[in-house]
Amino acid sequence: MNEMKNILITGASRGIGLLTAKTLAAKGHYVLASMRNVNTQNAGVAAELTQWASANNHNLEVVELDVTDEDSVNRAIQTLEARVTIDVVINNAGIMPCGITEAFTPEQMAACFDVNVVGVGRVCRAVLPHMRHRKNGLIIHVSSNSGRLAMPFFGLYCSSKWALEALAESMHYELSPFGIESILVEPGGHETDLIDNPPSPKDLECISSYGEIAEAPDNLKQAFRDMFAQKDSSTDAQNVADKIASLVCMSAPRPIRSSVGHDMGIDEINRLSRPVQANFIDAFMPLANVPYNTDNRLFVKATIQFKPEFAEQGINAIKQIMPQTLQEAGCQLFTLMKDNDDQKKVHLFEIFDNQDALDHHYEQDYTKAVFAQYEQWLSTPIEVSKMHAASPLTSEQL
Amino acid sequence: MNEMKNILITGASRGIGLLTAKTLAAKGHYVLASMRNVNTQNAGVAAELTQWASANNHNLEVVELDVTDEDSVNRAIQTLEARVTIDVVINNAGIMPCGITEAFTPEQMAACFDVNVVGVGRVCRAVLPHMRHRKNGLIIHVSSNSGRLAMPFFGLYCSSKWALEALAESMHYELSPFGIESILVEPGGHETDLIDNPPSPKDLECISSYGEIAEAPDNLKQAFRDMFAQKDSSTDAQNVADKIASLVCMSAPRPIRSSVGHDMGIDEINRLSRPVQANFIDAFMPLANVPYNTDNRLFVKATIQFKPEFAEQGINAIKQIMPQTLQEAGCQLFTLMKDNDDQKKVHLFEIFDNQDALDHHYEQDYTKAVFAQYEQWLSTPIEVSKMHAASPLTSEQL
Repeated sequence: MNEMKNILITGASRGIGLLTAKTLAAKGHYVLASMRNVNTQNAGVAAELTQWASANNHNLEVVELDVTDEDSVNRAIQTLEARVTIDVVINNAGIMPCGITEAFTPEQMAACFDVNVVGVGRVCRAVLPHMRHRKNGLIIHVSSNSGRLAMPFFGLYCSSKWALEALAESMHYELSPFGIESILVEPGGHETDLIDNPPSPKDLECISSYGEIAEAPDNLKQAFRDMFAQKDSSTDAQNVADKIASLVCMSAPRPIRSSVGHDMGIDEINRLSRPVQANFIDAFMPLANVPYNTDNRLFVKATIQFKPEFAEQGINAIKQIMPQTLQEAGCQLFTLMKDNDDQKKVHLFEIFDNQDALDHHYEQDYTKAVFAQYEQWLSTPIEVSKMHAASPLTSEQL
Repeated sequence: MNEMKNILITGASRGIGLLTAKTLAAKGHYVLASMRNVNTQNAGVAAELTQWASANNHNLEVVELDVTDEDSVNRAIQTLEARVTIDVVINNAGIMPCGITEAFTPEQMAACFDVNVVGVGRVCRAVLPHMRHRKNGLIIHVSSNSGRLAMPFFGLYCSSKWALEALAESMHYELSPFGIESILVEPGGHETDLIDNPPSPKDLECISSYGEIAEAPDNLKQAFRDMFAQKDSSTDAQNVADKIASLVCMSAPRPIRSSVGHDMGIDEINRLSRPVQANFIDAFMPLANVPYNTDNRLFVKATIQFKPEFAEQGINAIKQIMPQTLQEAGCQLFTLMKDNDDQKKVHLFEIFDNQDALDHHYEQDYTKAVFAQYEQWLSTPIEVSKMHAASPLTSEQL
């Protein structure tokens, strides 16, 4: 779980990228902190980061890489791969245009997609041949809750993040036969300098023709700054770095989407649309007629051993409560079996759509309350074993 | 409802664009059927379309417009607006790349976004100042069910359509104060020549390194062709043209999203994510602090007059059945009041998120079954009156 990995991150000069680079290095990973303009605009931060790593004995090197320049991307990654195996890529570099959507020029629109989407394509195209050859790799795309919601006055940003979401998820399926995961992190608003000077639309005539409404983007930016000024822990950008670090450590299969901070409802969108997307993939992939296993389902067996005096009560409670809570969690099958030899022991068999659904189930307050209640009834802790649907099932296991 | 409108459509040289242009012209609208290369590559189809319109006495003119060329877009729209009021724009021009996502070059990715997303931006930027000035207008964006699902081997296409969805929906909110609607049509697979020769990835070395999996895109294309060969009515592209025509005729507020054909689950995604998005807008827009009314909710009052012998039975049935069916429809409030003067009459008060939710409710088989059952109990048909939340409510109305 906690092995050292070689991790390339883009846009590491500031904000979430910088925090994530430092967080991963502090956890013992080998961090390739890439940024553009290492020798000019970002020379200061590059030197600072290198000194910080050296002073703290962390493995981190600063790498020149501009995601908008194919040569720069290829040069950086081929040079690195000649001496380092890149295990993980974090596509973090991005810009956040803010303003009336109509007032962004076509050049500004193209520039936004160039950084936020095509830039991801350039990095993936450079690193994936190596990862596919090794049949191992993890790509974490830094999206946003703007990748799941349509936000007025952030229309261009949302458009590029929705594009990133679809690209990352489509690649998730295409790369799974190679043992590579392409997953998304979706931060809500976090305190970084992203909000201070976002690209604004250049068509001033268009802006002024919106009258009073043209004040909306500045008002929204101020509202975010006011929110950040409250120093609420949920807007601390370190949370995003920590979430990314936890995804790096996690064993596969990782959730396709992980939100951080104020989710603004996207957890619900993710949860509600997941089974629809899963059903689509189940129907679509057989048409592709290639060797492919779409099955991310997890079989879970939980064995519960009650204290003698609580056995009847406990088993009845499970019968009453579990079917509904599991159904709400998107659990596909539920079987409760009494143990053949021990009348105080029961086995639960559950199938979850994926790790994400399982995690979601265990994160629910309701589930936690049920578990807390059970605790006093049990003679030993609940034993949970899980396996992938793709794994061969043996009679010992089920 | 059925007034003649001046309608500009892009990509009218073939497929859905051509069918839609003809369908709208046949319904009596003035159609500006735009396409690129009117004098070269598309000279044949342009002449044919003009002759067809003339022979059938329809109002249709072919217009040169290349969505990837800002000058071409501006020239076409300014020339038209000098003599015609463009009431409706149908952003239809688009390409559908198909292949391994990694194997598309950055240039190919950029070209896809240039047509499918930035092209829409160019057209909107040219026409919206006129529409905003008139405080009237309708923009229909032709998306896809690929705009709501992640489809392996259509990753780049999905990415561009997700981008279009976010752009269109963000503009929907930004333009609503001007009385302009920006809405989406989401066709499933329909029989057009789009599937015959879609842009394929140019990185052949990458493709070959995918081994057997590289056959997936061709297999998928063949599966679509096989599906179309069955001539099932649900894949008839005329359905898309008819849906667009019906949206043109519909009075505002129109649904933000309308699927056509095999929805592959996107109706469910649209329905499930709609209230989350609506709640987000309710929370977000006040932060913008500009004069703005996001409220698309509809107040519905239904008055039901029972025959004397069925009054008690009917009212009990409503009490039992309606709360659940309305809740399932996303109805926010439900009040049942007996009429003060007539014990055989009841009034139902309902609030729907928007016209879409209301339509969805009435389209359900379950709702239809309930209505059919009521019919025999009623002395007069159910009276339904609706109004927007934005309208002032008077005591007469509620």
